[in-house]
Amino acid sequence: MINVAVLGYGVVGSGVVEIIKKNCESISQKAGQEIRVKKILDIRDFDDTCPDKALITKNPEEIFGDDSINIVVETIGGAKIAYEYTKRALECGKHVVTSNKELIATYGPELLKIAKNNNINYLFEASVGGGIPIIRPLNRCLAANEIYSIVGILNGTTNYILTQMKKDGKDFDVALKEAQKNGYAEANPTADIEGHDSCRKIAILSSIAYNEFVDYKNIYTEGISKITLTDIKYAESLNASIKLVAMSEKVGDKIVARVSPAIVDKDNPLYNVEDVFNAIVVKGDAIGEAMFYGRGAGKLPTASAVVADIIEIVKHWGSCGGYDWNVAEGSNVIDIMETKAKYLVRIKTDNESEAKELVNSLYGNVEWLKPLKVQQKDELAFVTENILEKEHKEKFEVISNSEAVRELVNTIRIL
Amino acid sequence: MINVAVLGYGVVGSGVVEIIKKNCESISQKAGQEIRVKKILDIRDFDDTCPDKALITKNPEEIFGDDSINIVVETIGGAKIAYEYTKRALECGKHVVTSNKELIATYGPELLKIAKNNNINYLFEASVGGGIPIIRPLNRCLAANEIYSIVGILNGTTNYILTQMKKDGKDFDVALKEAQKNGYAEANPTADIEGHDSCRKIAILSSIAYNEFVDYKNIYTEGISKITLTDIKYAESLNASIKLVAMSEKVGDKIVARVSPAIVDKDNPLYNVEDVFNAIVVKGDAIGEAMFYGRGAGKLPTASAVVADIIEIVKHWGSCGGYDWNVAEGSNVIDIMETKAKYLVRIKTDNESEAKELVNSLYGNVEWLKPLKVQQKDELAFVTENILEKEHKEKFEVISNSEAVRELVNTIRIL
Repeated sequence: MINVAVLGYGVVGSGVVEIIKKNCESISQKAGQEIRVKKILDIRDFDDTCPDKALITKNPEEIFGDDSINIVVETIGGAKIAYEYTKRALECGKHVVTSNKELIATYGPELLKIAKNNNINYLFEASVGGGIPIIRPLNRCLAANEIYSIVGILNGTTNYILTQMKKDGKDFDVALKEAQKNGYAEANPTADIEGHDSCRKIAILSSIAYNEFVDYKNIYTEGISKITLTDIKYAESLNASIKLVAMSEKVGDKIVARVSPAIVDKDNPLYNVEDVFNAIVVKGDAIGEAMFYGRGAGKLPTASAVVADIIEIVKHWGSCGGYDWNVAEGSNVIDIMETKAKYLVRIKTDNESEAKELVNSLYGNVEWLKPLKVQQKDELAFVTENILEKEHKEKFEVISNSEAVRELVNTIRIL
Repeated sequence: MINVAVLGYGVVGSGVVEIIKKNCESISQKAGQEIRVKKILDIRDFDDTCPDKALITKNPEEIFGDDSINIVVETIGGAKIAYEYTKRALECGKHVVTSNKELIATYGPELLKIAKNNNINYLFEASVGGGIPIIRPLNRCLAANEIYSIVGILNGTTNYILTQMKKDGKDFDVALKEAQKNGYAEANPTADIEGHDSCRKIAILSSIAYNEFVDYKNIYTEGISKITLTDIKYAESLNASIKLVAMSEKVGDKIVARVSPAIVDKDNPLYNVEDVFNAIVVKGDAIGEAMFYGRGAGKLPTASAVVADIIEIVKHWGSCGGYDWNVAEGSNVIDIMETKAKYLVRIKTDNESEAKELVNSLYGNVEWLKPLKVQQKDELAFVTENILEKEHKEKFEVISNSEAVRELVNTIRIL
């Protein structure tokens, strides 16, 4: 019998308890031992309608001091008390399973080291892609590959908003409110819409794929709050969609990584990923291209990934399948200014010929887009060549300050 | 140091040797021990251009009699000598890794039992979906789920042919010849185009998902050789594509399973799977829907899955992560006649009103399709309701034998 304690009876934590109870028989069969939840830590008060009230305690000592508890599930979130409890559990020799991407992205190397030194596991399949199996496939199933790149839609909230804008012609603010109403976005949506959530996730995936810690703080991150319906129409005119894309790529012994809105062509498998779905495309030297797709969030999908990690630990009891995250000296992520990109650029001008002349003189060669039906008369749009970000930045600055151009409306990367 | 022997130096076997040599350092790091190929068994003669000539032997005793060889890779194929050698290796206490779907689908329960009794592993990630991680994700990552269904495009050859027909308007025979020319189809393409390959693969996936052996011989199987360009045009008029779909679904304690061409709607994630790509959609009670997508065949993708299994064994040395395939008494697959389906039906008639009257009287309610541009004047097509196969069969018989209908041209399931 394996005893599990769940720290934090929120959405994911209560889902973990629910799944272990519901699929108890098949889970125990697959794990080779019976698994049960012995204690739940939560400081809130629960009334009698809570089905797990009898297991809930406010006292962490009932968990850390109980040697019969072998596995701790951390679903508190954040990187403060969750950090403290995770460290303590690992130091007590308890395996820890989590869905907490912030904690892994911030303290991953330290916590994984403690786990390794204690010959126990610290697993986090649920931290990226909700229920989509991605961490273990990357680490195990694709282990024979040198991974070249990871490109994904890692945040369901922003993908839902962008899908609503495209399908129903809703403005960003309206689509965001609807996402909040439907429970797909939080009251404070910053972490999602500004790309911070995707940034932590691509940092975790990259750390696994390239076998060294990639610090999320070094990853350039741009959200979707500046994307308008007109931008989406331009993307459509290019047979493409706008998605919040998180990517990383191995270049020599460094990594190129970024999170930003990107224009995704119809032929790209990410083009068809809509609503709250996530998808991750992995390229490796042997496998070529593989994609993993599914619901990237939600109570039961995420909880099912947590429970899968528990089963894995129990099945291979005594064998530690931990990760080594070497921490590079200095940043292993190439400065975004030294990476290349191709842009859609929208400008407003009162003097079309002068503006075009300026742009052509700056870029040498751009593709001018046909005017859209929705477009205002004073607007022009073009697609640049693939050049260094720092060169784009200089050119955007010249465009912004030129008298021929009244406004640099928006610039969006092309994937 | 872990010594590996490879049985069969064909496409996949030579790929395994190539990957182990090429990615040696990272593979050994991930596995925690150095892995090397010590011997290769192949009865053919190889000249000096073969990079692995020094390792090749024709004498199996050099492998089975060598106690320093811990892992055997079986990439011979078929279920004769491969069966004999696999059994012998397992009985010698050597772990076995294979890409041989025929052997697993035929002798899986027996071989897995021998492995379990000897506390060693018999792994076969490469048997389905080439390099796409699917066996381990199904067994491990989705272990917390009760799996409801698996629906997939599991054969790259047929998907390539159907894509060529759709995209370039090629007839089946022309597309098949092109697939052969490009190395996507074998000289004898029967196993692929008649669905036998897909059948074995869905049997393997189902056995894992539902935790009991599903015998491929009980799965209804129909290939794509009768699919014509006109069928594809009809599918397009329904905003759909024709794909060779392998599926299984748990219904009570039985399983519905079949392989057949099917009309796949544009909204289905399988619709966009083209060329030699494979994709597998898994539905579970917790995860909802997840899809796995990638190259379903080819030397390096398949070999990379074999090597991942080797790494898994080495990483968890001493811990057996085997499968239990209970063998049900009698068939656990529901007779295809007792399952429900919806069809596109094409008929030829000299008397349209009589034919329509007959069909309406048989089905009560069908959706008559608008004539296609390519369609001949004497042809009608309709979509049926979802009813039992045996009822369809009766009705098709009546239609075939009726004087109002000259010919029942084709019937294709709608997914």
